[in-house]
Amino acid sequence: MKTTKLGILGLGRIGRIHLENLCTKIPGVEVLAAMNPSEAGQAFARSWNVPLVTSDADTVINHPDINAIVVCSPTDSHAEYVQKAARAGKAIFCEKPLDLSLETVKQTLKVVKDAKVPLMLAFNQRLDPSFAAVKEKINDGSIGNIISVHIISRDPEPPPVHYIKSSGGLFMDMTIHDFDMSRHITGSEVTEVFAKGYNLIDPEIGKAGDIDTGFILLTFENGVTVIIENSRKAIYGYDQRLEVFGTKGMVRAENPYKDTSLFFDESGGHMKRLPDFFMTRYVVSYLREMEDFIDALRNKRPMPITGEDGLKAMIIAVAANRSVKEGRPVKITEIG
Amino acid sequence: MKTTKLGILGLGRIGRIHLENLCTKIPGVEVLAAMNPSEAGQAFARSWNVPLVTSDADTVINHPDINAIVVCSPTDSHAEYVQKAARAGKAIFCEKPLDLSLETVKQTLKVVKDAKVPLMLAFNQRLDPSFAAVKEKINDGSIGNIISVHIISRDPEPPPVHYIKSSGGLFMDMTIHDFDMSRHITGSEVTEVFAKGYNLIDPEIGKAGDIDTGFILLTFENGVTVIIENSRKAIYGYDQRLEVFGTKGMVRAENPYKDTSLFFDESGGHMKRLPDFFMTRYVVSYLREMEDFIDALRNKRPMPITGEDGLKAMIIAVAANRSVKEGRPVKITEIG
Amino acid sequence: MKTTKLGILGLGRIGRIHLENLCTKIPGVEVLAAMNPSEAGQAFARSWNVPLVTSDADTVINHPDINAIVVCSPTDSHAEYVQKAARAGKAIFCEKPLDLSLETVKQTLKVVKDAKVPLMLAFNQRLDPSFAAVKEKINDGSIGNIISVHIISRDPEPPPVHYIKSSGGLFMDMTIHDFDMSRHITGSEVTEVFAKGYNLIDPEIGKAGDIDTGFILLTFENGVTVIIENSRKAIYGYDQRLEVFGTKGMVRAENPYKDTSLFFDESGGHMKRLPDFFMTRYVVSYLREMEDFIDALRNKRPMPITGEDGLKAMIIAVAANRSVKEGRPVKITEIG
Amino acid sequence: MKTTKLGILGLGRIGRIHLENLCTKIPGVEVLAAMNPSEAGQAFARSWNVPLVTSDADTVINHPDINAIVVCSPTDSHAEYVQKAARAGKAIFCEKPLDLSLETVKQTLKVVKDAKVPLMLAFNQRLDPSFAAVKEKINDGSIGNIISVHIISRDPEPPPVHYIKSSGGLFMDMTIHDFDMSRHITGSEVTEVFAKGYNLIDPEIGKAGDIDTGFILLTFENGVTVIIENSRKAIYGYDQRLEVFGTKGMVRAENPYKDTSLFFDESGGHMKRLPDFFMTRYVVSYLREMEDFIDALRNKRPMPITGEDGLKAMIIAVAANRSVKEGRPVKITEIG
Repeated sequence: MKTTKLGILGLGRIGRIHLENLCTKIPGVEVLAAMNPSEAGQAFARSWNVPLVTSDADTVINHPDINAIVVCSPTDSHAEYVQKAARAGKAIFCEKPLDLSLETVKQTLKVVKDAKVPLMLAFNQRLDPSFAAVKEKINDGSIGNIISVHIISRDPEPPPVHYIKSSGGLFMDMTIHDFDMSRHITGSEVTEVFAKGYNLIDPEIGKAGDIDTGFILLTFENGVTVIIENSRKAIYGYDQRLEVFGTKGMVRAENPYKDTSLFFDESGGHMKRLPDFFMTRYVVSYLREMEDFIDALRNKRPMPITGEDGLKAMIIAVAANRSVKEGRPVKITEIG
Repeated sequence: MKTTKLGILGLGRIGRIHLENLCTKIPGVEVLAAMNPSEAGQAFARSWNVPLVTSDADTVINHPDINAIVVCSPTDSHAEYVQKAARAGKAIFCEKPLDLSLETVKQTLKVVKDAKVPLMLAFNQRLDPSFAAVKEKINDGSIGNIISVHIISRDPEPPPVHYIKSSGGLFMDMTIHDFDMSRHITGSEVTEVFAKGYNLIDPEIGKAGDIDTGFILLTFENGVTVIIENSRKAIYGYDQRLEVFGTKGMVRAENPYKDTSLFFDESGGHMKRLPDFFMTRYVVSYLREMEDFIDALRNKRPMPITGEDGLKAMIIAVAANRSVKEGRPVKITEIG
Repeated sequence: MKTTKLGILGLGRIGRIHLENLCTKIPGVEVLAAMNPSEAGQAFARSWNVPLVTSDADTVINHPDINAIVVCSPTDSHAEYVQKAARAGKAIFCEKPLDLSLETVKQTLKVVKDAKVPLMLAFNQRLDPSFAAVKEKINDGSIGNIISVHIISRDPEPPPVHYIKSSGGLFMDMTIHDFDMSRHITGSEVTEVFAKGYNLIDPEIGKAGDIDTGFILLTFENGVTVIIENSRKAIYGYDQRLEVFGTKGMVRAENPYKDTSLFFDESGGHMKRLPDFFMTRYVVSYLREMEDFIDALRNKRPMPITGEDGLKAMIIAVAANRSVKEGRPVKITEIG
Repeated sequence: MKTTKLGILGLGRIGRIHLENLCTKIPGVEVLAAMNPSEAGQAFARSWNVPLVTSDADTVINHPDINAIVVCSPTDSHAEYVQKAARAGKAIFCEKPLDLSLETVKQTLKVVKDAKVPLMLAFNQRLDPSFAAVKEKINDGSIGNIISVHIISRDPEPPPVHYIKSSGGLFMDMTIHDFDMSRHITGSEVTEVFAKGYNLIDPEIGKAGDIDTGFILLTFENGVTVIIENSRKAIYGYDQRLEVFGTKGMVRAENPYKDTSLFFDESGGHMKRLPDFFMTRYVVSYLREMEDFIDALRNKRPMPITGEDGLKAMIIAVAANRSVKEGRPVKITEIG
């Protein structure tokens, strides 16, 4: 097995998860260089003995021994780094989204295509074991023809307002995962989007021009209906559920709990809280997406999640925003 | 306690449930007369020792000792019987719907109002213990402000096509319960309806001009969003769920199972099937609605579910049908 | 179908359940006479239109039109009534136990045997749908060879001390159901009993010479081990569970809850309380045992639960008491 | 924070888990040396960049820079290595058991005591999050006075017969964890042991002189009863449960499932399998025990689980073996 040599850009929350997984869980890889503007992230990289730690992205991207670049920097740098890495002939793993502008995404994908380098986009939720088990039940025919899909995604707490401001909005930042999951689960493409959006959780989010509560009804080419419910805040924890109803059966992925203990007293039975947030809920899926990336690279297989997947989810988000604004169902063909 | 003396019209499935409950479970009532066109229903009444068994509705309605009429005959006779009973000064319990025509319903309600008799409409699901427990959590403040409601209602098997033809359609026949539940749970009125309807289960239903699959997104005056999923067939049994999400908590009513046994083998853990249908799932709620009717009569309290509740649910159904037809959200004010 | 004509002795809690079920749920039966010493029980019988209501048991037992006697009077009258009914040639349904004395039970069974009348003993828990589902999994081979059985039976509240005093003690009064269930589930006979008993709940029970907490380990002829846990008080409700472990699988009957609603808040998820007590938990099993009795009578089939079943459960209870007293495992052969 | 410098002896399954956790999950530690007789284990150590890899235990134990020794070698070397490490003044973490002979254990503990070095014994199950949650409910008073404890521990597959032969037997090898858990949960000491043991799973185990099925009833000084059920094989997976019943409440730790997906078809609802074995079930507890060891070392706190805990669990196992052999309850004071 030839060693895969990687560079990583950005060591915030997600970057650190990927770096730790690469250093401790995935055999046959070496992280040769890491870029982070701040000292804290650099120290993290050093603690894992990354040989070259820098604040300069180009040094990492152009490192002659590096085969692949993992992009975990802030969203507004994704397009630039991906394009540079593509032009340098490197394989790329990039956190979602590629960019908040459809135009920039399309142009970036063109650069990647022209460079003929592999690009994997990080829709990690596809790889959550419970959601993957749902997909497996579809694939093995247990569900029959899918009739509808229901996704609930609620965060435990809204992000800070300054994050909201540069996030692209609820649909682009949060629902984007559910749009991707919808395409993944149905195996089809959206034709129409009807969406409702509200500011019910925190007035500051409304002042920042965003919504914190969303309901989306998607119609797919194959006739499947997908319903998505989103909220920036569920007081009872991180609520992530998926249910698929079909002609032969129904399958649902329920939330896990912090532990399996049950307590009974005079008032009834009591279960533990849901997981706190994505850091604890999606531990396995973060590892799996990095394994899948390395595995595809090593065996020269197509990337399991592509830049086009990212583009298509974004187009749904744009249609959803228009639907809220205009109070009507929007055809996907209306979006440029 | 003065004995309440009743007459019952119609002894099909629901009529028999009510007659049996009246004869065996509710103290202080007497069923003096029963009407059914066929011999089978009449024999059922006789087996419960009903003194007067007849095929003539007027004989029951005008029986001088009877205070209250329970109408369980086919839908197309409801309006006539209710109007006659009202004019005869009797209290009325009527199965839903009052009629398939909005005009006839309005006119019937006017007759009832003019006659100043109490009328209770049979939206029994409000009284299911698990759904009632959901409502209680809202009432006691545990949920905070309601943000959204999600209702799943799937039958185990579609009814015969001849029933479909005279049913008024999926939204009027089946979703009507969910429309009523939405108003009951939110404590508010619908302003807008967006609905999708499909014929995915049985082509014969489509040929009969109806749908068998529906998705409805309701917007309420108080800002709450309600999402309803309906199917005429769930292969895994009678699926009836309700979930309410609010600022302080979330509450859901899950399906019961046939029994509480769990079996574990090499392939995993196995629970029993869901209840077969409404006859086994809603046993308690059928009893409670009759108790509530008798109780309101006896204590001269307002009926807990009124003819107006029936009318309002019907108006939502009409709007839902128009939304499917026109492919757009329909304002409730558009419906006459 | 020939009508089965019954008389009932005793209209306390259980007697009323049986009378109501006979009058409202079981076709083809008629209750011709009822005996109860007090006016309240007699009034109950009259409310169900029982033609002959009396305080004299012999009048019921010797009623010429009556085929079968249902004995629900206090335990100390069971043996007398059963013997009289047997001598009068009536079929008999009797609440457990036949008597608190092994000698009297044996003698009574002899009278029944000599009279060649059918006798069914009321171990209703065998007929609980969830426990019956467990038995079914054993019968259909899903469990393979049984290795062990675990029974938890905890009441929500201890009975009054005056009841305790005449109850025969915890093992004879409460665990007797679990001893019967053990024999039923294992399909085998006990060879050895090791038991521990404590007074941990209420000192008054100890003063009355009884225990309120018991642990029993039974060894069966076929090598199966059964473990029973009993308590007179579980603050969280009526806890009745059964689990069977075998070479091919495991099956457990879990407790039901008051309803299926689940509430989630900051502290976690919350289920409703367990059922209050046997009146609400075993509704179906009471009906089924009466149906089975009538069905066996009508079709001249052997009674599903016999007087010998009652005797064998009692012998286990006697052995358990001796085990607690002597601090050692007791062979069943040691009991006369 | 001063770096803790460790040596590790033995790199089989458990040794590798500890080494990986030390190298990747616990900050402020360095593994300076590793001993394993075979090349495979040595290669594993090298892959984690352990500077000194050897087949000689003394080299590790006497390494001048090493503060603490982690003993994961086969059981028959534990006593020797622990004694050597103690005499070398090192802190010690040792897998259970210290030895199969009570005498050797006592003598080893004396050496440790004389050397005044800290020793932690690896009863990792105490640190499982769900079992720890049970203990927490006891500690915070939610359970009131404990009345009884029920432990189910069933392996998915028996170990190879050659392992069985040198294991010390079911009670010493497997139940030892449950004996420790019993002491941990009740906070008390055993006074009497009644045990039953059978060879029901694999005749080869019987030929090797061992049992594969055990039932144990422990009586504690504080009046609590603990019931343990053990099997070397549960066809449905690794079954590890704990339930505590008390005067104020009941708490149970249920099994987790492989994922949270639920599938419903005509036959009912289906959950996933239980975890495969301790490697997947107790991931977190293995990490926590190493963290706790390092934490106690660093802050000079008493070890959370001691050599005496190991000794006391062993004494219970000896009593259990005698109880099975002699068919009677055995007082703990009977064991030397």
